[in-house]
Amino acid sequence: MFEKGAKSGGDLESAQAKNKALEEAGAIVPTSFEGLEPAIKIAFQKLVEDGVILPTQEIVPPSVPEDLSSAIKSGKVRAPTHIVSTICDDRGEEPTYAGVAMSTIIEKDFGVGDVISLLWFKRSLPRYCTKFIEMCILLCADHGPCVSGAHNTIVTSRAGKDLVSCLVSGLLTIGPRFGGAIDDAARYFKDANDRKLSPYEFVESMKGKGIRVPGIGHRIKSRDNRDKRVELLQQYARSHFPSVKYMEYAVIVETYTLSKASNLVLNVDGCIGSLFLDLLASCAMFSQQEIDEIIEIGYLNGLFVLARSIGLIGHTFDQRRLKQPLYRHPWEDVLYSKYV
Amino acid sequence: MFEKGAKSGGDLESAQAKNKALEEAGAIVPTSFEGLEPAIKIAFQKLVEDGVILPTQEIVPPSVPEDLSSAIKSGKVRAPTHIVSTICDDRGEEPTYAGVAMSTIIEKDFGVGDVISLLWFKRSLPRYCTKFIEMCILLCADHGPCVSGAHNTIVTSRAGKDLVSCLVSGLLTIGPRFGGAIDDAARYFKDANDRKLSPYEFVESMKGKGIRVPGIGHRIKSRDNRDKRVELLQQYARSHFPSVKYMEYAVIVETYTLSKASNLVLNVDGCIGSLFLDLLASCAMFSQQEIDEIIEIGYLNGLFVLARSIGLIGHTFDQRRLKQPLYRHPWEDVLYSKYV
Amino acid sequence: MFEKGAKSGGDLESAQAKNKALEEAGAIVPTSFEGLEPAIKIAFQKLVEDGVILPTQEIVPPSVPEDLSSAIKSGKVRAPTHIVSTICDDRGEEPTYAGVAMSTIIEKDFGVGDVISLLWFKRSLPRYCTKFIEMCILLCADHGPCVSGAHNTIVTSRAGKDLVSCLVSGLLTIGPRFGGAIDDAARYFKDANDRKLSPYEFVESMKGKGIRVPGIGHRIKSRDNRDKRVELLQQYARSHFPSVKYMEYAVIVETYTLSKASNLVLNVDGCIGSLFLDLLASCAMFSQQEIDEIIEIGYLNGLFVLARSIGLIGHTFDQRRLKQPLYRHPWEDVLYSKYV
Amino acid sequence: MFEKGAKSGGDLESAQAKNKALEEAGAIVPTSFEGLEPAIKIAFQKLVEDGVILPTQEIVPPSVPEDLSSAIKSGKVRAPTHIVSTICDDRGEEPTYAGVAMSTIIEKDFGVGDVISLLWFKRSLPRYCTKFIEMCILLCADHGPCVSGAHNTIVTSRAGKDLVSCLVSGLLTIGPRFGGAIDDAARYFKDANDRKLSPYEFVESMKGKGIRVPGIGHRIKSRDNRDKRVELLQQYARSHFPSVKYMEYAVIVETYTLSKASNLVLNVDGCIGSLFLDLLASCAMFSQQEIDEIIEIGYLNGLFVLARSIGLIGHTFDQRRLKQPLYRHPWEDVLYSKYV
Repeated sequence: MFEKGAKSGGDLESAQAKNKALEEAGAIVPTSFEGLEPAIKIAFQKLVEDGVILPTQEIVPPSVPEDLSSAIKSGKVRAPTHIVSTICDDRGEEPTYAGVAMSTIIEKDFGVGDVISLLWFKRSLPRYCTKFIEMCILLCADHGPCVSGAHNTIVTSRAGKDLVSCLVSGLLTIGPRFGGAIDDAARYFKDANDRKLSPYEFVESMKGKGIRVPGIGHRIKSRDNRDKRVELLQQYARSHFPSVKYMEYAVIVETYTLSKASNLVLNVDGCIGSLFLDLLASCAMFSQQEIDEIIEIGYLNGLFVLARSIGLIGHTFDQRRLKQPLYRHPWEDVLYSKYV
Repeated sequence: MFEKGAKSGGDLESAQAKNKALEEAGAIVPTSFEGLEPAIKIAFQKLVEDGVILPTQEIVPPSVPEDLSSAIKSGKVRAPTHIVSTICDDRGEEPTYAGVAMSTIIEKDFGVGDVISLLWFKRSLPRYCTKFIEMCILLCADHGPCVSGAHNTIVTSRAGKDLVSCLVSGLLTIGPRFGGAIDDAARYFKDANDRKLSPYEFVESMKGKGIRVPGIGHRIKSRDNRDKRVELLQQYARSHFPSVKYMEYAVIVETYTLSKASNLVLNVDGCIGSLFLDLLASCAMFSQQEIDEIIEIGYLNGLFVLARSIGLIGHTFDQRRLKQPLYRHPWEDVLYSKYV
Repeated sequence: MFEKGAKSGGDLESAQAKNKALEEAGAIVPTSFEGLEPAIKIAFQKLVEDGVILPTQEIVPPSVPEDLSSAIKSGKVRAPTHIVSTICDDRGEEPTYAGVAMSTIIEKDFGVGDVISLLWFKRSLPRYCTKFIEMCILLCADHGPCVSGAHNTIVTSRAGKDLVSCLVSGLLTIGPRFGGAIDDAARYFKDANDRKLSPYEFVESMKGKGIRVPGIGHRIKSRDNRDKRVELLQQYARSHFPSVKYMEYAVIVETYTLSKASNLVLNVDGCIGSLFLDLLASCAMFSQQEIDEIIEIGYLNGLFVLARSIGLIGHTFDQRRLKQPLYRHPWEDVLYSKYV
Repeated sequence: MFEKGAKSGGDLESAQAKNKALEEAGAIVPTSFEGLEPAIKIAFQKLVEDGVILPTQEIVPPSVPEDLSSAIKSGKVRAPTHIVSTICDDRGEEPTYAGVAMSTIIEKDFGVGDVISLLWFKRSLPRYCTKFIEMCILLCADHGPCVSGAHNTIVTSRAGKDLVSCLVSGLLTIGPRFGGAIDDAARYFKDANDRKLSPYEFVESMKGKGIRVPGIGHRIKSRDNRDKRVELLQQYARSHFPSVKYMEYAVIVETYTLSKASNLVLNVDGCIGSLFLDLLASCAMFSQQEIDEIIEIGYLNGLFVLARSIGLIGHTFDQRRLKQPLYRHPWEDVLYSKYV
């Protein structure tokens, strides 16, 4: 509709000439940017008058919606939250675990057990507890390449997969038959002790239900060849725990089972399971209801899962270092049966 | 401040009596609910006049924030979306796959291949394509209990875990060394054919890089004992595909490799890989760029993963039916080495 | 000790000359290879006689152990197998599914449902059954990006992970609250029908236990706006199944629940669940005990898992195609609470 | 054929009477157990002579195959092992980690870092190293509920799944975009320092390749508001590490980047990454080749995965404690697009 003014004098002159020519040809030519709007109005009205176009009703343009975050800030809108979370807040300058800043954790010389205490139990347990948690992790970190978890991790590592896939493939075998003994020991010992069952009543009622007492029995160890790890844990607990009533209960159960067979000793699983109950009960930081919830949710299984992850990651690295090829299970080891 | 009017005449009289008594004692007593507000005002002004209370500045009460969903509906607020999704819309009366309603899928007698076509490729491929996709699924559904995937699934099932954990533990072994041959065959055949390499150039350049040609070679099959599955697939493609140029390329590559050794036949992986390229190229529904993207993203791996899931789920059920106990790999099969 | 005979005459003469010289110098010189052993014996006895060396007791060399595979073949050793498997045999020229060769599967134009039938049920179900299995897969293949499974898959895909990790991350959400309704519907309908409970007794006893009847109820659908998919499935079953007694039971339960509220219709989950019972009962290929085992093991969950894998793989590809960046859940959507 | 001698005299007499009667009736009656075999022979020959039975050729009975484990023990058979493993031996009275018995680990008061040292590095690193490993675990244990890993774990926990499934669903998001910064920082700093690149050369060459320098940059922290955690780690390393050359290199890189923008500080990832290099180089327990292998295999990723497992397990417990229902992503947050 109009020729924009240009930089050089020559160009300007040329523009003026063009505008003039357009005007003479009947065009409406504004001479400045400000003249554009009135020129459009004049052109529009002329077209309406000439009957070229029919005016329609004015539409009120929709107001531009406000951005959500500014609307929330100004208090105009209340957006519901879909997630609740309580263990770690990452919104500030540095994350906090149950309210404790990460730099405080370094400054105070916290250990792995202390961080587990904060993120799982939402409180800072005394050091004798967090040290015991670390001991459990050490003892459960690995149990050789033949158990289900390590085996699957090794197979996946040999398939050339990434670390997480290898770890995960092994973790998925942890459950009722592999890794579940500590949890079970804690559950049964707690129930039996709280119901004040005598060792005889406890063991025989388990037998009646066809359930082996979890935490009792060892392939090699026996009355005269005790498991040193059990002795060390018991020794630690006796010198550091305010009370060890659940462990004592496990010990008198062991006395009874040993009277039946010499290898029915309290094993590491049973020792950890019963001592964890003592940890929860003795520190006086949990209500009875909270302890029940912890046992029901399965925190001890969490300890086993975390601990064994160390071993499974180790097996992944080991196979990679050894440059092992794709594993194929030998045909000779499989009974191909059609009749089952 | 006033005694509320009560139901019975006797109560009303009693209320009037009480009000009268209060008034006489100096209380301001409204005689109706409507009189409450002016009475409060009178009481307030009297207390101010008497200097009992000091009036403070009026506070404008904060407006109650609006609920997010109504604010979005009314167009006041624009909430940014954090997720984009294009394959399935579940907001209406029934979900749609790439725009096709589920009941239409049943009515039109769609097969599994058609649904894969909609959810993966976002278009309805012709039936000769979706039928070929189904054939690939049949052929890759299982390969016995000894391969990595089935083995891990069997171990996890024997650990007493749920179906998803068993399936997943096996799936995680799928990758470069297990299940990757179809994808690799498609990639290398496409690259070689598109670059117009002669079979000699292709095979020898692979050899030069130390890479075995994927899709070529079989443990048992040979020039004089062809794989029937390959023959059936080729036969299907020749009668149903508009063109089979990639398959033809694979066949002349095979002719060259057979001249080197009699077992270097085109195997099922190579056959599926090359025919899938023909499927994409021949149906004229994908741009060249889209085909490249499909191969790069790894759709063929998706086919293998989906297909093999049928077998892995089958192995899970099989072990459960057989009531197999926890698997432990035999010690004798492990070389415990310290010196590596 | 001796100079080996050489090729040319000149060399031979030269060797003889050297041997002669050695003999004269006191060496024991054998004149042929056969003479080597006696020469060693003479030399040894001479050294013993001279007291240069002291003879020690003869050691019987250990016999070289036989290789395991040849020992098994010759019947000398019986190696126990550690794994039993029944669904697929991969030892021959081509794998067989429940005894059916893969090329037969292609030749006979089997579908995905037929292969599932072989690998899961170990028998070739009639086509009306395998077609119904395929219909279930179509209907359960996806349900949009907002459900737990698809959401986790999308998040993992946006973290740049491989296909299997994305799929698996989503599959792991399938369980009691997500995807479990079909299985539950089958279990409860079977139990109620087999115990000959009236719809009133069934629904009210569920209510008494505080359990919603699975398979009944819809967000949108109602008495006057039936779900077309349910109608199509019922229509298919009525024309193809020999009997539909479980479906009929579900329908009379629906009649009762509709008398309580108009949206308590039989939904797709309930329809599939009850019809799957009819499939098992009507084909006369399973004993009552086998049907109970199938329901207990959770084959219907397997169908859902397999079907939804199609959607989860589709979502993985979708996000990759869209080149979506790392997902981070918005802070504003989280209630950070310390007091729980 | 004969009546066995019995205990009492009366019985014996009675047996003799019976035998006599049998003999008289024509039966061949041995008078002792030893007489049984010749009696059978006589009876057989008599029947042959009488033509009652026809003698057939003697069959050599197949020798009963020996059991594999006894055949291996006796050295007759050599079974190849299919798995090699070096980190943990579980065959003795108690498992050993890289040769160290578990009870020794308790007795010597080892920490989590020491066990990681044994199972991952196959050697007992000095305490300043294992303490540093523990510090890394503390700092990486969690980063709130909004990051990919925690988010997926929360969603899976709210689907009512078991602990392992929840943990795993979150772990699977760890990879190039989430959790990979420490590893990347170590790789790039090592390469740049070993190639003696000046900070200018290093940073600008990264910029040229379009790669952000990993380990540099923070959302909030800046030149005048340093990250306390970085300061604490550096302080620890300066007082305990024999040398900190990689950290010093990272610091001069930071000096250069700070000259470009004030928030381009060395962050926690970069600090851990460079200090881990110093750990490996300074303890003089690894060859150069071993260090390269450790970085290539991705041990630092292992540290992150293990550490973050603590947080993911914590989030699982948290959601369970809060009894959160099934998560469904809000429709409003999704852009359903058809045109991509």
